[in-house]
Parts: sequence; structure tokens; C-alpha cells
Amino acid sequence: MSGSLAQATSQAESTHPADRILDAILERRTPACVGLDPVVERCPIAIGGGAGPMPVPQAVPIVERFCLDIMDRIADFVPCVKVQSACFERYGHAGVAAMERVIEAAGERDLVVIHDAKRGDIGISAEHYAHGMFRRVDGIAPSWVTVNPVFGSDGIIPFLERGGVFAIVRTSNPSSDLFQSLPMEYGETVAEAVAELIADIGRSEDAFIGRHGYSRLGAVVAATKPEDCDCLRSRMPEQIFLMPGYGAQGGAVEGIRRCFDGKGRGAVVPASRSVIYAFEPDDESWLNAVRDAASRFADDVGQAADLR
Amino acid sequence: MSGSLAQATSQAESTHPADRILDAILERRTPACVGLDPVVERCPIAIGGGAGPMPVPQAVPIVERFCLDIMDRIADFVPCVKVQSACFERYGHAGVAAMERVIEAAGERDLVVIHDAKRGDIGISAEHYAHGMFRRVDGIAPSWVTVNPVFGSDGIIPFLERGGVFAIVRTSNPSSDLFQSLPMEYGETVAEAVAELIADIGRSEDAFIGRHGYSRLGAVVAATKPEDCDCLRSRMPEQIFLMPGYGAQGGAVEGIRRCFDGKGRGAVVPASRSVIYAFEPDDESWLNAVRDAASRFADDVGQAADLR
Repeated sequence: MSGSLAQATSQAESTHPADRILDAILERRTPACVGLDPVVERCPIAIGGGAGPMPVPQAVPIVERFCLDIMDRIADFVPCVKVQSACFERYGHAGVAAMERVIEAAGERDLVVIHDAKRGDIGISAEHYAHGMFRRVDGIAPSWVTVNPVFGSDGIIPFLERGGVFAIVRTSNPSSDLFQSLPMEYGETVAEAVAELIADIGRSEDAFIGRHGYSRLGAVVAATKPEDCDCLRSRMPEQIFLMPGYGAQGGAVEGIRRCFDGKGRGAVVPASRSVIYAFEPDDESWLNAVRDAASRFADDVGQAADLR
Repeated sequence: MSGSLAQATSQAESTHPADRILDAILERRTPACVGLDPVVERCPIAIGGGAGPMPVPQAVPIVERFCLDIMDRIADFVPCVKVQSACFERYGHAGVAAMERVIEAAGERDLVVIHDAKRGDIGISAEHYAHGMFRRVDGIAPSWVTVNPVFGSDGIIPFLERGGVFAIVRTSNPSSDLFQSLPMEYGETVAEAVAELIADIGRSEDAFIGRHGYSRLGAVVAATKPEDCDCLRSRMPEQIFLMPGYGAQGGAVEGIRRCFDGKGRGAVVPASRSVIYAFEPDDESWLNAVRDAASRFADDVGQAADLR
């Protein structure tokens, strides 16, 4: 193989989103993902937060700085961040501009970015979304986005062709059972039927599978119900799971533990509030508190994944 | 009743999103909704479009002007517009800023705005989205948004408390059957189960029902399968249907006709490409062509709704 071809192959491999995130996880020895859900009222007083609601031009720089400061402090031991789009879109286009800068800054710090936007549409509209999210001409784009599965493959493929996709399969909110647990004809639940659809789409092209054996189509699977984790893992053997629920509800570590493959691969575990708000508003050393909380979290889920 | 109380009541009534859109439909005698899905490559040469892809700062003013010009030409006979968020988000924060101006301009022209963003999340994140979409402090907000139902009521109520919501129930894209048509335990489809969930949520508070008897929680139901329309209407008697598919596929008029209540109420019919691109790129009188296409469309669906 010529040097230039080897280089091209290597670059292509390194940009496969499944390999990108798994390599980062193995390197840092933890599947920890810090969720950036900035809320200005909960930001530290030291950077202007901690007060009530405030005008958009005043709030946006505070939430942006909050995210940048946190990323500076965690980037050397955490593999990835999840950027909650809603927290920025709340502020309209000014918030979106700040989010673009936060994603850019994450990339500069070599953090893998999951843009948690839960988008979903069909045809040309899905392509517009995917283009806007993955093909930023003026900056670094996220590696992964979250997407709704309600349209079937038409709503997923346009994103998948451009980057990594976590499709929503099983959530842990109180009303999720109203829909996701409804029984299908053959006794399985709606969530299980979605899981089978996701597994099929995720292997529908050879290029979707990376060199670790995982697909660039992953799945959001709440960590809070261990028995669900088992049956969803058996239906989605090639999906990386994005597993919310850690730190918020009991049972999460047990559910997470079951979804790894014994080599520390198979899942990404996000935690937001328990890490980024691990301080009192008036704590001037709030960044140390965030770093310590992130470090403990990285250690705990690193152990759950058998990486530590 | 005192004058001021009567006025307050009247304002509250007029801002119930179901009444707002139905009043506008009855007044214009058509349920026509023009979809604003601007794509710069398809914009008329006369305003700078018609070329290949171009940089964001060049493209955004063109798609914005395209939408404003069209709204000027149709606002006196069309009751509402549907703004496709993806077409603007494609361009990042600059596109979102343009979309905010387009929504503002629609409100100034007394057009009811459906923000077709298909958002969905839970808890505080859903509240952030809903706040960002419905509570713009610096401008006019849309009356309605489109939302994904995958989280159950938790993902819908935060939006519903602030405005009108069309939940996605049945779409007509090729892969929609992969999920929406799967059979449930008792023989109904996933789409029908979602419909029952939507009907329940839509009447879960008295205030959700407006004076026309319709809920502020509506449903996206593709117009292309008349038999589906029948069974979804029977499950969702209080939902206003947003019915894509007109002009794109056969059978649409028949499906639409079945969803009205005999008094011209019950559905909103969007058409985008068949109206806003009803010209050749080099046509200098493109706006007349758009107006004529919108006028024919308004007439056709006005007849289907028995309003003309």
C-alpha cells in the first residue's frame, strides 16, 4: 500500500464516528460524557449567574463562558461532551451562535461532541438539518447528533450519511411508558420494535460499521431499567448506547454495566446536572468542584465499563 | 360583565391557538397553508437565486427576501404559513436569525404561523425549547409548532402550555410504514396507538379545548391514505389535522375531504413546493406565478373543506 493511500485510509477510519468516540473512550479509560445543559440561573455568581431570568444579551455570554470554562477543566480526562441544544435555542439565534462557538471550542480541545438536538424530518428537510449540523463551513461540527426515529429510515439515513446518529429508543421520563412500553402484536414493546428497526438500518451499509464492530447508528437507551437494557442490547448488538439516567435514578450503574462488551466498548454515559452544578452558586472555586465531580464520575463509569 | 373583563376574555379566546387558526380559516374560507421551505438554488434569479450553492452570508438574505415577498403577495387570501425550520437551520445562527424575522413578518401580516421544527425532549429541555419558540421577548412568536410524540405527554405538555402543538402521528414518506404501520397487540397500528395517546392528552385539561370544540393539541396526518384518515379521525375527534401530501401524491383531496366536520373546520392543508416554486428561475414575474398558484390551491382546498 502506498503511503498516501495508507494515510487516506487511516484518515477515513479515524473519522468514522463510531471509531472516533470509542477510541476516545478507550484512551481516557472511561465512557463518561459531560452534558452541557447550561441554565443561567444556576451558573456561578463568579461569572454573572445565580440571579433570576435576565435579558438574552446578558444571559448568552454567561452560559457560553460557563461551558468553555468547564471544558477547559475536564478536557484532559473526559472523552466527550453532550451539548443540549434546547439550552441554547432558548435564546434564539444569539443562543445558537453561542452553541456553535461551544461546539467549535470542544473540537479544539479534542473532545468528541454529541449534539443533543433530537431532530427528525424527512427527505430534503432532513438533509437540510443534517447539512446544518454536520457540514459547518466556518467551524468544527459535532461527531454525533441525536435523532427521532418516528419517520423510519427516511428520517435517519440523511444524518447517518454525514455523521454519527443516536436514535431515541428508550427513555426514562415518567410518561415514556405511555408509548414506548405499549405491547406489539408478538408481545414485544414499541421500544423493542424500534430497536430492531435501528439495528437493521445501522447495518444496512458496510460503511456504517467501524473497525471496532460498532455502527455509526447508535441508540439512546435509558440506564434506569436494567431488564430493558438486556433485551435492547440483544436486539442491537452493533449499536453504541447513549445511556442517560446515571446519577439521577437508582439502578443506573447496574443497567450500564450490562451494556458493555467486556472491552470497555458499547456505551457512552452522560451526566449533566450532577457534574456541572456540583457547587453552591457563591462558590468561587466552583470549577474545582466541577472538575472533582467530573473526575469521580469518570472513575465510577470507567469501573462500570471495566476500563479501570 | 364589565367592559375590561369582556375585553380580557375576548383576548384570551382570540389567543387560544385552535380558535386563532380556525377563525383565520373560516374568515378566508380556505384551510390553505403555504409552506415556506426556501432553498436558495430554487429561488428566482431576479432576487439572486437560481445558482448553485453559495456562502451563508450570500444565501441567507436571498431566502429571507423570498419568504417576505411571497407573504406580501398571499397574505390577503391565505390564512396561515408553515415555516420549515430545517431550511433556515441549514445556515446556522444566521439562518435562525432570518427565520425569526420571517416569523415576525408573518405575524405583522396577520398570518397564523406554524413553526415546523419537529422538536421533542423532556422535562426542563422541553421547557427550554417551548420557551424559545413561543416566548420570544423581542418579536412575534408562532401560534403552533410541530412536535415529536416519542416521549409521551412529558414531551408535549411543556409546549402545549405555551401554544398550539401538532404532534406527528402519520406521515407519508416511503419508510413511514416501517414503524408507524407495525401492528400492536390488539390489531391497531403504532400510528393508531399514538393517535389515542394524542387524543387523551389533548383533552386532559379543559383549557386545551377552544370554543370551536377543537384542542390546542393537533396532529400531523398525511393526506395520502384516505382509509388511514378515516380511522385516525375517529380516534382523534378534537384534533385539528395538519395534512401534508396535497399536490405531491394522488388521493390527497379524498383524504382531506374526509377530515373536515362539514363546517370547514378540522384540518389545515399545507402545500409548499407546488406553490412557492410555481415559476421558472428566470421568470421576472415569478411573484404573480406564486400568487396564482396559491390562489388556485386556496380555492381547491376551500372547496374540499366545503368553504367555497
